[in-house]
Amino acid sequence: MRVPVIIPCILSGGAGSRLWPLSRSLRPKQFLPIFDGESLFQKTLRRFPAGEFAAPIVIANANHRFLVGEQMGEVSAANGEGAIVLEPVGRNTAAPVAIAALRAAEADPDALVLIAPSDHLVRDGDRFREAVRAAKPAAQAGKIVTFGIQPSEPHTGYGYIRLAGAAGGVRPVEAFVEKPDLARAEAFLKDGNYVWNAGIFLFSARTMIAEFEQHSPEILASVRRALDAATNDLDFLRLDADLFRAVPDISIDYAIMEKTDRVACVPMDPGWNDLGSWSAVWETFDKSAEGNGSLGEAIYIESRDNLVVSDAALVSVVGLDNVMVVATKDAVLVAAKDRAQDVKEVVERLKVNDRREVREHRRVYRPWGWREEIATGDRFHVQEIEIQPGGAMSEQSHVNRAEHWVVVSGTLEITLDGEARLMTENQSAYAPVGTRHRLANPGRVPARVIEIQSGAYIGDDDIVRYSDADVLGAEGDCGWD
Amino acid sequence: MRVPVIIPCILSGGAGSRLWPLSRSLRPKQFLPIFDGESLFQKTLRRFPAGEFAAPIVIANANHRFLVGEQMGEVSAANGEGAIVLEPVGRNTAAPVAIAALRAAEADPDALVLIAPSDHLVRDGDRFREAVRAAKPAAQAGKIVTFGIQPSEPHTGYGYIRLAGAAGGVRPVEAFVEKPDLARAEAFLKDGNYVWNAGIFLFSARTMIAEFEQHSPEILASVRRALDAATNDLDFLRLDADLFRAVPDISIDYAIMEKTDRVACVPMDPGWNDLGSWSAVWETFDKSAEGNGSLGEAIYIESRDNLVVSDAALVSVVGLDNVMVVATKDAVLVAAKDRAQDVKEVVERLKVNDRREVREHRRVYRPWGWREEIATGDRFHVQEIEIQPGGAMSEQSHVNRAEHWVVVSGTLEITLDGEARLMTENQSAYAPVGTRHRLANPGRVPARVIEIQSGAYIGDDDIVRYSDADVLGAEGDCGWD
Repeated sequence: MRVPVIIPCILSGGAGSRLWPLSRSLRPKQFLPIFDGESLFQKTLRRFPAGEFAAPIVIANANHRFLVGEQMGEVSAANGEGAIVLEPVGRNTAAPVAIAALRAAEADPDALVLIAPSDHLVRDGDRFREAVRAAKPAAQAGKIVTFGIQPSEPHTGYGYIRLAGAAGGVRPVEAFVEKPDLARAEAFLKDGNYVWNAGIFLFSARTMIAEFEQHSPEILASVRRALDAATNDLDFLRLDADLFRAVPDISIDYAIMEKTDRVACVPMDPGWNDLGSWSAVWETFDKSAEGNGSLGEAIYIESRDNLVVSDAALVSVVGLDNVMVVATKDAVLVAAKDRAQDVKEVVERLKVNDRREVREHRRVYRPWGWREEIATGDRFHVQEIEIQPGGAMSEQSHVNRAEHWVVVSGTLEITLDGEARLMTENQSAYAPVGTRHRLANPGRVPARVIEIQSGAYIGDDDIVRYSDADVLGAEGDCGWD
Repeated sequence: MRVPVIIPCILSGGAGSRLWPLSRSLRPKQFLPIFDGESLFQKTLRRFPAGEFAAPIVIANANHRFLVGEQMGEVSAANGEGAIVLEPVGRNTAAPVAIAALRAAEADPDALVLIAPSDHLVRDGDRFREAVRAAKPAAQAGKIVTFGIQPSEPHTGYGYIRLAGAAGGVRPVEAFVEKPDLARAEAFLKDGNYVWNAGIFLFSARTMIAEFEQHSPEILASVRRALDAATNDLDFLRLDADLFRAVPDISIDYAIMEKTDRVACVPMDPGWNDLGSWSAVWETFDKSAEGNGSLGEAIYIESRDNLVVSDAALVSVVGLDNVMVVATKDAVLVAAKDRAQDVKEVVERLKVNDRREVREHRRVYRPWGWREEIATGDRFHVQEIEIQPGGAMSEQSHVNRAEHWVVVSGTLEITLDGEARLMTENQSAYAPVGTRHRLANPGRVPARVIEIQSGAYIGDDDIVRYSDADVLGAEGDCGWD
């Protein structure tokens, strides 16, 4: 019998607001480089080395497509035409699992698919892969194998799976259990036959499609329609927006796992943490003797068990215990660590006022690279811009502002009213009010530019675009709803 | 008998670190615009309206001279040649009192001098001036009148004055009392004959000089020598650095007040607060129903009695009480409010490492205006610069970096290798590596410029200066020692 490959399917549609203000809806948790300088998304990609695993299918929100592309490139993750499926809106987990099964089945209905969320931390990749290997025969035999995490504490924030049979290897599942109260969670921990439901599954494409047909045919049918009408765009496969919006917004647990009789479970203990809040992040950090964990520069004076995450400023904590401080350039969060979940309340309040701090950082990613606002004042606006090799901004002009550029590194092609010229390090150029201009990077290394906009009116809406390379978000919605 | 004028002498030599990180040694507490957009220094100047008072003598640290000049200008405080006496180093309070007496006596030995610290808040200027009027006859009659603050609580952080005689008007002083413990402070409050020593005094120049001659002749003599060797520089009178360093570093209380038999006291209650810590600042702020006081944008969720001061970022506080958050662009302080005094410990630790966050903000003041670092990266450095009308930076050149300027508002004269030209809004200029350049503002309004330094090396030390308009701190020392 032919041994089918395992196709990792990385689910990256989430936009968790619980790590605000470091996470923003346009740069959610899975893309934050908070562990050894890499993001959880990148760590997830690295969990599936070529050879043992096929190239991954990534399913992501359309608004994150440049982040996905850039972060995959940084870890040299293999991809190919249509390997990144873009969801125009978030539709919970049933839809992406169906997408993964259908995409895998196109090449081989017996292919095995491993569903892996992109926003969890897994410390021990070897143990994780051991568990996957242990699950493989059962998956080939038609089981949907879920991987349960051995509980280390009576956590009330996760769903549990009650296992049957004897300890070790692949075990039958007796039931999926909703988040318990503390007394029940303690009983579960003592009992020993309960594991955390981490949303990680292995199955053959054929099996999952059959189960969808039996238990949730409307999801499968609507996902098929959105896939059939999808369009290819280099590495991206863009799902049809209207058709995908019609897909039921349901979790895979509810759609399939709680209904199927094919489920089995491999318990594992790979150093898993869902990083569902800042206090969970604190748990994963290396800590000082006083229990303080930091990312960025921090000073503690008579303070214990605190978390500091800072992307720029030096943070000092004096005489406080169990506090978290998350400092970004435009928003600082200071909270009791046991109130970490209530960060959502702050985000809710900001959303009501449509505050930018919810949506994006000062640095925003674009198809051609990124731009970061570094200063705004009366009559001026300064941005740092990086254009990737081959990248080009849209051609545009402005009625009220002039723009100046200073090339800091790399080479830039600037086109002014149709006339192109090359500029390199330390050179500068200038587009007077009304001039059509376009910046592009024809080189092999990123080009870094400082842009100064100056004029009596410097609002974002003073722009006439002659192409759309720069438009982000017109098609998608990744708001924290 | 001729009625002598009262010359307010504003003591501005302090460099209190207790309001760090908003205060820095180069921009201490008295210059922070935290009350109605004005600084305590400016509010102190306004306390002495012309007519009732003569033009003030300001005694300040030489490193703060541009701040002093700018802030006096903003409130249209009268000054004149030599009206701002610059101390090359801090020498406690005896020296500036002697300076004030000697300077006042030059014009009129019978002139009355009112010593007023510049870093206290006085809410009720009318009551303050009433007390001064009440003290005037005694001062004319040769008393040194100190103004005692009626205590509102058993504060252990202030020295006390024990009064003799009956309540009301000018009272004899029985003793100066060191900072008490809580039990004694409570007894003082109950007793009713104790007031806080606020360091505010009224005396005639003749009286104070006589008392110095009697009790601390070496201070008077050394101050006289530093004054005799002082040099005039427009509004500034620069004390001779070496001679002033030789002046004993002693408080006026110790040098005179505790020894003289001429002391008297006028008790007053003018809404005084010495703002000696962030918790004292919190006391003076308007607060929400939950007791939260903010300067800058803050969101509180289930949080009470907190203080937020932010110069840029939105600060959110969740589930915390009695915490203070002070957020600046490069340093964030989060502390228990009852540990406000321990901010000094943070500053001490930073000083050991010669950290810039102790010394200055991203915005630093220069004789010609200010510059603020807005972004630094690999190979570049972006600054916002404001040059005052008539201001000129030093002529300089750099070996490793080019500089670009974009004029955002106003008019700039830029001289490149000796050739001057005018640039106005939206125009830009460029100094290649090695070019001698000089920026000046020949106009009538401030000129705002964005400067981009680019090059392989952008360190501060890559500079050749051809004039010294830009050199700050070479002569003074205002460190927090």
